[in-house]
Amino acid sequence: MRVYNFGAGPAALPEEVIRNAQQELLEWQDTGMSVLEISHRSSQVKDLFAQVEGKFCSLLSIPENYQLTFHMAPARAQFAMIPMNLLANAQQKADYLVTGIWSKMAADEAKKYAQVNIAASSEDNNHTSLPERNDWQLQADAGYLYYTPNETVNGIAFNTIPEVGDVPLVADMTSYLMAEPFDISRFGLMYAGAQKNIAPAGLTIVIVREDLINNIQAITPKVFDYALLDEQNSLYYTPNVFAVYMAGLMCDWLERQGGLAAIAEVNHRKANKLYDYIDQEDFYRNQIKPSDRSFINVVFQLADDKLNDEFIAQAKSTANLVSLKGHRFVGGMRASIYNAMPEEGVDALIDFMRQFVKQHG
Amino acid sequence: MRVYNFGAGPAALPEEVIRNAQQELLEWQDTGMSVLEISHRSSQVKDLFAQVEGKFCSLLSIPENYQLTFHMAPARAQFAMIPMNLLANAQQKADYLVTGIWSKMAADEAKKYAQVNIAASSEDNNHTSLPERNDWQLQADAGYLYYTPNETVNGIAFNTIPEVGDVPLVADMTSYLMAEPFDISRFGLMYAGAQKNIAPAGLTIVIVREDLINNIQAITPKVFDYALLDEQNSLYYTPNVFAVYMAGLMCDWLERQGGLAAIAEVNHRKANKLYDYIDQEDFYRNQIKPSDRSFINVVFQLADDKLNDEFIAQAKSTANLVSLKGHRFVGGMRASIYNAMPEEGVDALIDFMRQFVKQHG
Repeated sequence: MRVYNFGAGPAALPEEVIRNAQQELLEWQDTGMSVLEISHRSSQVKDLFAQVEGKFCSLLSIPENYQLTFHMAPARAQFAMIPMNLLANAQQKADYLVTGIWSKMAADEAKKYAQVNIAASSEDNNHTSLPERNDWQLQADAGYLYYTPNETVNGIAFNTIPEVGDVPLVADMTSYLMAEPFDISRFGLMYAGAQKNIAPAGLTIVIVREDLINNIQAITPKVFDYALLDEQNSLYYTPNVFAVYMAGLMCDWLERQGGLAAIAEVNHRKANKLYDYIDQEDFYRNQIKPSDRSFINVVFQLADDKLNDEFIAQAKSTANLVSLKGHRFVGGMRASIYNAMPEEGVDALIDFMRQFVKQHG
Repeated sequence: MRVYNFGAGPAALPEEVIRNAQQELLEWQDTGMSVLEISHRSSQVKDLFAQVEGKFCSLLSIPENYQLTFHMAPARAQFAMIPMNLLANAQQKADYLVTGIWSKMAADEAKKYAQVNIAASSEDNNHTSLPERNDWQLQADAGYLYYTPNETVNGIAFNTIPEVGDVPLVADMTSYLMAEPFDISRFGLMYAGAQKNIAPAGLTIVIVREDLINNIQAITPKVFDYALLDEQNSLYYTPNVFAVYMAGLMCDWLERQGGLAAIAEVNHRKANKLYDYIDQEDFYRNQIKPSDRSFINVVFQLADDKLNDEFIAQAKSTANLVSLKGHRFVGGMRASIYNAMPEEGVDALIDFMRQFVKQHG
């Protein structure tokens, strides 16, 4: 029996998407082979890549002056790729907002390829509220400002796009992209690992304003060169064809749900009902400032940490709810409620949480 | 109907492996989720990675002092990763043997991170025979000697492991690994993209002698750090779990074929009968020196290049043989006959080639 999987990523995929893939796994289209086997130089794969790119452009309303590329290196590779591609050399400046574990790691890695300025940080309050906008120390001559709209581990999020003037905004949207509509043109570059809302792990999507990528550093490996990848339509190296194919199935599924606006409504409803329950029940708590809470990764603690293991075990054995354990850096619980988590899954979680309080409250 | 796929990579997979994956795609083991969805932090995935590593160690008889890591970046990333990890800085020397397109590209990319010496090259004879061993200009103080045992595009191969003294031998085994048994201990490092004999595209395997990787360059991206990846059992970043799972199924399949020695016998028989036919039939030719021919990628030309398109079209329409077109840098035809190509596929190809001569010879 399939479970409700609240994992932060790799995360649940819609059952019908997996069934689609399963059905045509042995023979894809009329090729006589599996999508796992077909050459990336075939016309079918070239068409597939163009089609899937088109689906993203349409769902996200990507403006003409942006390019989208599919990368095989993990999302974390972007920590290096971004300064390598956007800054001419390691003496150039870049601003970073540190609001959780992921933006912290991005800033640390970028120090090899840039003069990194931590423009603001919420480390002092353990990432429970965003730094006040007035306190940010932005540099007018920074090559870009990097931030993480949704911090998957910490459950903290920018619920609006920050106003930063002319400095290009660069965003790690790994757990955010495809969760709601937003204005792409506000960004210089964004990227997302696929394993939340896009496809199984093994793919990273980069969307970048074309004028920003004529500055590549000499030490950049060719597989990290955005312009080269775009020139070759993401077929510079042998790509993960299967993941791009899966991303296409995911886009089709999202269209059937009504697109980004429709899924966003469901996503916010799921998050709101979960936070509402947590806030009204003393047994559970969420320590993030309400305006800065993630609607995607809902972290919460139990009244007594000693009950954590029992909570996790019972959630699985009695209610079929899995992967609720919080990240080891944060502890407690985390319910990741990406697009593929149906509202019934969140209802089932809240029901279980109520039952658990009755037993242990 | 499934075809005989002679593609160079992504390449054919055994039908029973695809069927295995298909069968359990919706629910893997007793997890209640797909292997496409399960967290890389779960005990099941940790076990999977350890098991699959164990299968490779067993099939390849990997000595204790070597580490095996699974990488998500494409095999081509190794062109940079190798000097970054094996040489302390870009002033260190490395020797390269250029015997085809892939080793040429590896040497070019390495120039950013090493003093590259082309110790020998077969460019002068268009890679139709290997440079004579006596003519190699090896440096005693090179950090390593890099070569490509099997050149997938050119169809030329080292059919024995070169003797090079104490300099660590580094090999791109993308189209060679798992095709026959060999002595791992002769090498300092080897790597292979999965998309030939290991798994679908989206995975690269690196096997390296542990004492060689304490020299990492400061500019190396963390996702390229062999030691870090090994420390974290290839789970430093969110990996392509599906590809590692598929690699496990492929290892199991290989065991069922009798292991490397048994598959090697089939592989050499397939290649020999194809070369024998080409050599006896004037209509076809292979220009590689017989001792340097690849038993994996068999390139051949037709008497008249104008017949190429018709050959390809008829092979598909009359005999269900696909992906025979040679690489654009070489032209003509190429039959890649990896482990998953059954002997009947090669027989069918030879039969078709005979028919084609009857019509056009």
